[in-house]
Amino acid sequence: MAAVSVLGAGSWGTALAILLNSNGHNVTIWSIIEDEVKELNETRENKSKLPGIHIPQDITITNSLEEAIDDKELLVMAVPSKFVRNTAKMMKQFVREDQIIVNVAKGLEDTTLYTLAHVIGEEMPNNHIAVLSGPSHAEEVSRNIPTTCVAGSKDHETAKKVQDIFMNSNFRVYTSSDVTGIEMGGALKNVIALAAGISDGIGYGDNTKAALMTRGITEISRLGIAMGADEQTFSGLSGIGDLIVTCTSMHSRNRRAGILIGKGYKLQEALDEVKMVVEGVYTAKAALDLSIKYKVEMPIIRQVNEVLFGGKETKKAVQDLMIRDKKIEYTN
Amino acid sequence: MAAVSVLGAGSWGTALAILLNSNGHNVTIWSIIEDEVKELNETRENKSKLPGIHIPQDITITNSLEEAIDDKELLVMAVPSKFVRNTAKMMKQFVREDQIIVNVAKGLEDTTLYTLAHVIGEEMPNNHIAVLSGPSHAEEVSRNIPTTCVAGSKDHETAKKVQDIFMNSNFRVYTSSDVTGIEMGGALKNVIALAAGISDGIGYGDNTKAALMTRGITEISRLGIAMGADEQTFSGLSGIGDLIVTCTSMHSRNRRAGILIGKGYKLQEALDEVKMVVEGVYTAKAALDLSIKYKVEMPIIRQVNEVLFGGKETKKAVQDLMIRDKKIEYTN
Repeated sequence: MAAVSVLGAGSWGTALAILLNSNGHNVTIWSIIEDEVKELNETRENKSKLPGIHIPQDITITNSLEEAIDDKELLVMAVPSKFVRNTAKMMKQFVREDQIIVNVAKGLEDTTLYTLAHVIGEEMPNNHIAVLSGPSHAEEVSRNIPTTCVAGSKDHETAKKVQDIFMNSNFRVYTSSDVTGIEMGGALKNVIALAAGISDGIGYGDNTKAALMTRGITEISRLGIAMGADEQTFSGLSGIGDLIVTCTSMHSRNRRAGILIGKGYKLQEALDEVKMVVEGVYTAKAALDLSIKYKVEMPIIRQVNEVLFGGKETKKAVQDLMIRDKKIEYTN
Repeated sequence: MAAVSVLGAGSWGTALAILLNSNGHNVTIWSIIEDEVKELNETRENKSKLPGIHIPQDITITNSLEEAIDDKELLVMAVPSKFVRNTAKMMKQFVREDQIIVNVAKGLEDTTLYTLAHVIGEEMPNNHIAVLSGPSHAEEVSRNIPTTCVAGSKDHETAKKVQDIFMNSNFRVYTSSDVTGIEMGGALKNVIALAAGISDGIGYGDNTKAALMTRGITEISRLGIAMGADEQTFSGLSGIGDLIVTCTSMHSRNRRAGILIGKGYKLQEALDEVKMVVEGVYTAKAALDLSIKYKVEMPIIRQVNEVLFGGKETKKAVQDLMIRDKKIEYTN
């Protein structure tokens, strides 16, 4: 049994807090939004983000970051990716060096192009940092649907600790040392989900979408390897596994935005319709910048950027992907 | 422009014949069933297997294997996997050594556990043999939906020749030298599709299915590597790409049979309901035999066998997969 805090009360943070509670840990949820803390404490339900799921009474819900961090063995960061740096800056003053920080957000910092564990590591350089990622819709985890994830940390003991704390008979956790690979898969899948949605919106088929997913993970893998990641990670749960879930589910905002664009909506119209943050739109730019920085060919990422920001016609983008030079599937 | 024959008039053979015809080649379709040849010649439509798709008048349809083989540059074998050996035996007497044989069937020979290109190579050892595989529902290819495949041959010139003959602006073909990897992915995906169907039938979620697909391709990859295949092939179009299409589409008989079993049908009841050959049921046994022969751990394949042939309860099988030892995602 461990004392654990989840920082951030979105759907994923809430689902993980409930999971950790059911594993017998002493769990605290922190939110920066005072009204949210009040409502969650009153209703014991995250009505907007995880409706219908009861938050057990013995989970502490607080607006005090100091209280959330104090004496916890594990701090789970479940804030939106754009708030990761600032949350880490706020955490610094309270954090002890023996506390493990587990990032579960997915994305890249747009100004630096850094992965989120890298950002957290810059702010809290003396803590062991881990990531947890995989094909894991929050709604399904909160209903005890069998789910698998991978816990990554450069320090194997840290990864094993995270595995021990999260794993149960419906939530299987593997360990890995490849933090960069896990984070690159999680961040860039959203761009491929946009492409998959665009293909669906045009009216293309399962063949087309499977091709975009397969060649998409190949591109992500090429970039990841150039950044020091292991190739195998992209064939794993945080790579193709998470990509499959994101590209085939209507839960995915990125896919839904893509479908609208495939149907002829302009980018802003699609974003207005989806209403929530479509992470892939920002990651698309960052991924293209990284592909230039690391001199890696990423044809799908490039076409997505041309469609989103260059007004390129979607069918023309798919066509340009189909008629490139005749290639060997893998060259190395 | 080449002279090409497609041997076998199923949905995939017919779709490929139409594709090759549209690429400007001189195309012949052969079927062993006299009545089928007669009907196709009269109606120019494969009503039972590819309804609504017109077979152009300039495609020759014949019952004569000698006529089909005579003077063709490329012979595409599109017969069901269990007829591959006998068809190859019949072809031998007519085939010239400079003719390329392209196998597009997927499966393993149940008595020998050989892949199909291996079987064909035993019967016609002096011909260049290639395979063509990838996420490619016949119905979508026949409607010009953008599709990608990989052409594999140990001889690079042969693979390039197949690429040249099949590729067009809606059908992108990559080349590979890894025939074993391509065939193992194509054959074993059907067993994982059964598992994915079972999970859907129980009522599990997208998380569970993505986990089965991701860990499934890991198992297939482990076995393939032990048999001499390249790891990368399993991350490619004929590996995870084809697996994605098979596990997520209702076109897949294997997935449909799995769903029924997940809902509580006995194996024979499910097969009676699906009515057509459910290839994965036979491949499941062969895969387990291969895993024993090559001493490779394949927990999903093993559980599928226990459900299909040992009467194991499906939820118990999933549970046993979830609660195995705590593992590292990749060990090598």
